[in-house]
Amino acid sequence: MPTRRRLANAIRALSMDAVQAANSGHPGMPMGMADAATALFSDHLKFDPADPYWPDRDRFVLSAGHGSMLIYSLLYLTGYEQPTIEDIKNFRSLQSPCAGHPENFMLPGVETTTGPLGQGLATAVGMAIAERHLNAHYGSDLVNHHTYVIAGDGCLMEGINHEAVGLAGHLGLGRLIVLWDDNQITIDGPTDLSRTEDVMARHKAMGWQVLECDGMRPQSVSDAIEEAKGSHKPSLIRCKTIIGYGAPTKQGTAATHGAPLGEEEIAAAREALGWDAPPFEIPEEELQAWRAMGEKGAAARKAWHERVEASPKGRELLNRLSGALDHDWLEPLVEKLISDAPKVATRKASEIALDAINAVNPSTIGGSADLTGSNNTKAGGIQPLDANNYGGRYIYYGIREFGMASAMNGMALHGGVLPYGGTFLVFSDYSRGAIRLGALQGAKAIHVMTHDSIGLGEDGPTHQPIEHLQSLRAMPGLTVYRPCDAVETAECWADAMKQSGPSLIALSRQGLPAMRTEKAEGNLSAKGAYRLKAAGAERRVILIATGSEVHVAMEVAEKLEAEGIGADVISMVSTDKFDAQSAAYRGDILPDVSNKEILRVSIEAGTTFGWERYTGIHGMNFGIDRFGASAPAPDLFEKFGLTSEAITPKILERLNND
Amino acid sequence: MPTRRRLANAIRALSMDAVQAANSGHPGMPMGMADAATALFSDHLKFDPADPYWPDRDRFVLSAGHGSMLIYSLLYLTGYEQPTIEDIKNFRSLQSPCAGHPENFMLPGVETTTGPLGQGLATAVGMAIAERHLNAHYGSDLVNHHTYVIAGDGCLMEGINHEAVGLAGHLGLGRLIVLWDDNQITIDGPTDLSRTEDVMARHKAMGWQVLECDGMRPQSVSDAIEEAKGSHKPSLIRCKTIIGYGAPTKQGTAATHGAPLGEEEIAAAREALGWDAPPFEIPEEELQAWRAMGEKGAAARKAWHERVEASPKGRELLNRLSGALDHDWLEPLVEKLISDAPKVATRKASEIALDAINAVNPSTIGGSADLTGSNNTKAGGIQPLDANNYGGRYIYYGIREFGMASAMNGMALHGGVLPYGGTFLVFSDYSRGAIRLGALQGAKAIHVMTHDSIGLGEDGPTHQPIEHLQSLRAMPGLTVYRPCDAVETAECWADAMKQSGPSLIALSRQGLPAMRTEKAEGNLSAKGAYRLKAAGAERRVILIATGSEVHVAMEVAEKLEAEGIGADVISMVSTDKFDAQSAAYRGDILPDVSNKEILRVSIEAGTTFGWERYTGIHGMNFGIDRFGASAPAPDLFEKFGLTSEAITPKILERLNND
Repeated sequence: MPTRRRLANAIRALSMDAVQAANSGHPGMPMGMADAATALFSDHLKFDPADPYWPDRDRFVLSAGHGSMLIYSLLYLTGYEQPTIEDIKNFRSLQSPCAGHPENFMLPGVETTTGPLGQGLATAVGMAIAERHLNAHYGSDLVNHHTYVIAGDGCLMEGINHEAVGLAGHLGLGRLIVLWDDNQITIDGPTDLSRTEDVMARHKAMGWQVLECDGMRPQSVSDAIEEAKGSHKPSLIRCKTIIGYGAPTKQGTAATHGAPLGEEEIAAAREALGWDAPPFEIPEEELQAWRAMGEKGAAARKAWHERVEASPKGRELLNRLSGALDHDWLEPLVEKLISDAPKVATRKASEIALDAINAVNPSTIGGSADLTGSNNTKAGGIQPLDANNYGGRYIYYGIREFGMASAMNGMALHGGVLPYGGTFLVFSDYSRGAIRLGALQGAKAIHVMTHDSIGLGEDGPTHQPIEHLQSLRAMPGLTVYRPCDAVETAECWADAMKQSGPSLIALSRQGLPAMRTEKAEGNLSAKGAYRLKAAGAERRVILIATGSEVHVAMEVAEKLEAEGIGADVISMVSTDKFDAQSAAYRGDILPDVSNKEILRVSIEAGTTFGWERYTGIHGMNFGIDRFGASAPAPDLFEKFGLTSEAITPKILERLNND
Repeated sequence: MPTRRRLANAIRALSMDAVQAANSGHPGMPMGMADAATALFSDHLKFDPADPYWPDRDRFVLSAGHGSMLIYSLLYLTGYEQPTIEDIKNFRSLQSPCAGHPENFMLPGVETTTGPLGQGLATAVGMAIAERHLNAHYGSDLVNHHTYVIAGDGCLMEGINHEAVGLAGHLGLGRLIVLWDDNQITIDGPTDLSRTEDVMARHKAMGWQVLECDGMRPQSVSDAIEEAKGSHKPSLIRCKTIIGYGAPTKQGTAATHGAPLGEEEIAAAREALGWDAPPFEIPEEELQAWRAMGEKGAAARKAWHERVEASPKGRELLNRLSGALDHDWLEPLVEKLISDAPKVATRKASEIALDAINAVNPSTIGGSADLTGSNNTKAGGIQPLDANNYGGRYIYYGIREFGMASAMNGMALHGGVLPYGGTFLVFSDYSRGAIRLGALQGAKAIHVMTHDSIGLGEDGPTHQPIEHLQSLRAMPGLTVYRPCDAVETAECWADAMKQSGPSLIALSRQGLPAMRTEKAEGNLSAKGAYRLKAAGAERRVILIATGSEVHVAMEVAEKLEAEGIGADVISMVSTDKFDAQSAAYRGDILPDVSNKEILRVSIEAGTTFGWERYTGIHGMNFGIDRFGASAPAPDLFEKFGLTSEAITPKILERLNND
């Protein structure tokens, strides 16, 4: 039986060889943490390469994602179907699933896409929350796993670390275990170039258990993990390591961090490590030992399946893990809203929708970054999820927008829960990194973003989104909705719940009149845009508006019709969804712009940037291309010319001049 | 002489009355921190209401910006010209400079715009850095002031707090003193709903001095500040306070945080506080005491001016504080670059420009969020600024993008320095909140954002910007540049240095051929867009490209011309700058799109979203509307169809079909 150090050297060899072959990458971290990872995989991690998605597996998150060769090596060595050795030889090329940073959508076995520092750990917090929550509902027989993280100094220096560590400490996530690769090196050089901090004391202050080990000795690491597993607090294990361990002249320096070691250094490293196998070849004995480690997990998985089968709650759990949701709440709610026609803020409408959703969907977990009463996110009688009640369904995230969004990603990736969380739209700037990483991974979380324009009024320009809607619409993989009334809000929630990835619903602070007062066929908002009102007189204008400006567009249309000018009103609930409709549908809603007989006009209380896509250059764009101001909302709409009184004459003038 | 408690009650009365009159706002914080603020202003703060911008004043930052009535009260009471009592009566309305959150561009005396939590403190870190830096160069006779911050629990929970506290601790900014309003309340309720943290221990672990005081007793606060001033570490003073102090039934609860107290509660508070003056009236005795406090500062200011006059370095300091910069480096550099025509990455070109800039502009302070070698930001032989050498000009910010950008805002607002700092463009998602707050304030900082597209290659989609350029261009007040070669890069730097607000320069990782090989009149990039190549044959196509795609456009043009089709190539260095040009200039570069004889084509390795503004709907947009991939850059340009071989036939096909 080879020593664990020998097994770890297999990781070192694959890592330095793959980076060399790709002529780019990060060998230092995998070589430094190879022993620690070997200890984790050999002695603790519950996993089964034959079924990477087995629900009760432990989660392993490589937060320091640049060290991707560590996880690729581990997956290959333990016998996952992917990556193959060919994949590793083609590290960082188009034909390989071994991307520069680990992508969960390319490789089963990668639990979450990492790379943007700090987010892996913050995502792991969400996974650990989901585990405790499901455990509370289904018991330890069915849900009982750990979440392990390897994090570097970058992950610990990023601001999001404070939010993630704070949240984990507050929730007492004892099953979260972080191995800190304490190699004293960052890209720019020694950590003391930029950091003077007692990392352990900080974590202790945040409610964590802190442990130390020799990261270069597998037994030392394994013992520390064993101790961590016994704690009711999340654990930080400081692994003292040497970056690039094995590379004789470069180890311990930033030179090993992000560049190939070079042929000569690699040869010398082989010698130093006593590793004489050629590149990409793992000696039979070591490979067998690794594979045997991988095969150990099958028994636990099989036993779990038997327990699920035997449990009265087993089927329900599997159903939840499949992501099944109840959508039947929509129709009766819409019917009621159409008949009641309430004049409410769409954030309030969102609460009404959530009352209905949460009542019939036990898998939702709501929350807010300390704006519960403003985001209207606590609905349907759900109770707090906290260290004393993991079964609760509402998280007081605190003033941690980024941490919240990352935790939501983690919960979504864990499965079995549908997370949603609220903040003000302008603070999407704080959580944007996580919204994007969720979009890249198709992590199904719903971002509830209220106070979505100058309509929030007195809080002023720091709180008023201007460029946010458009800049979020420009993000791939994210579906952005901006409903105009209570009916559309319910429809947006229903559609968001059907997406395979994340959504963002932008909601007003201010009350809005009911626009949808007649029964319609199906979910109109799901089409992205639809004709709310057809021109009465001959159509000369198409008004395209969203959210709180739809009723303004309706008023403008009324005024135009009074002048004998026909005007359609299009409610553009989601440009993402509209762009995905058939050409025929899009052409019906927005006929070819070369038809200059018809003037297209956009109205949205945000930047006009990008609206030319729908209006053409010769259309008109009403919006706000500067920062807002502090005043009551009606004064602001007047100041920025976003009233029917201001807009209508400008359209008339244009029509008269054309 | 009224007691300080009496003086503090003047703040309480103004705050509750103004919020009530506005029918919105946050009375709780000003009422809780009134005693502490009174202690700070009466015993410590060096300020002169007669000259709010006096350079050696202490800086006071209300990081908990929602408590804006605290600072408005202080400015009014101590005798600043603004706000007047009328302004306070009109709190949160269009006619008043007393906005919902404090705006430095509306009120002298407000050092920085605050509201987005955590950023005020992080900005103050930059101010404190600038102070120490200038002190190192000009001595304590000329530069010698403190930076005081009032921060709430939100400011301390936000992720940026970790970065700001870490940076301040590392740099040993002993003149930074933070008063923590420890009122145990956040919007959602008691802090223990979301936080389990020993705040003091955390700060201690980060290298801070931590002190405690009774925040409701001015002398206790004043003593703590006195102690803090003696430390070589930044200080956190925990002020135990009662939110909404004075409101008999609501104090100590979240009910006082963000809503008017109501007439009845205000009447009861008046009674409880022994304050019988009517709303917005300050009894003569109290007003006189406050005004006397304001008048004390004139002597220090006068003495400083005398010292400046007498000092051999005084004139130089004043010149620096005026923001004067040397721009003469540009012309010879451009001349050399035109003659050398180097094929370099624009990040390298940026280093070349910085070599020239830093050599003649002593006020630049560079840095990077741990990507110094990748961002090419350490140039011109500048030395590190650290706790042992505040006179240095390069900051190793560590892995703290958001903290870096906020610190840059603070340095810019302090004056006397021009900060620039680097990270990867994709990580603008991390620092976006600070970029925006800088844009709102016109804080002149230059964001150096390298690795600006899929051209970064193997690091893959987590690191490849797609929507970033457009989403940053959509932000008001920020000038975004994307140069195509070394000459344009120098021009962008020169133009950025002439802006009154922040700029962002997007730079390539990969080498780019020289495009500008002929001498031109003036700074062409400063126009935002210009004709790099005029059509040879009759013009039928206008190719609009930016940065690393300009040379692709040139190749496309060459291929089109070979087919007898004339094509202009427009280098769109900055849409922000181009949009601000005269209609005549814009019309020359991009003739009216209704001229369908001319096809407009955009090429940019990012989202196509928004490019219709320049191409019209019937133009063509080449870009990437999905996430990137991990592979060598040339493979990616091929995969995403951003080569002249892929683009040219599509243009020809369109021309043939039209």
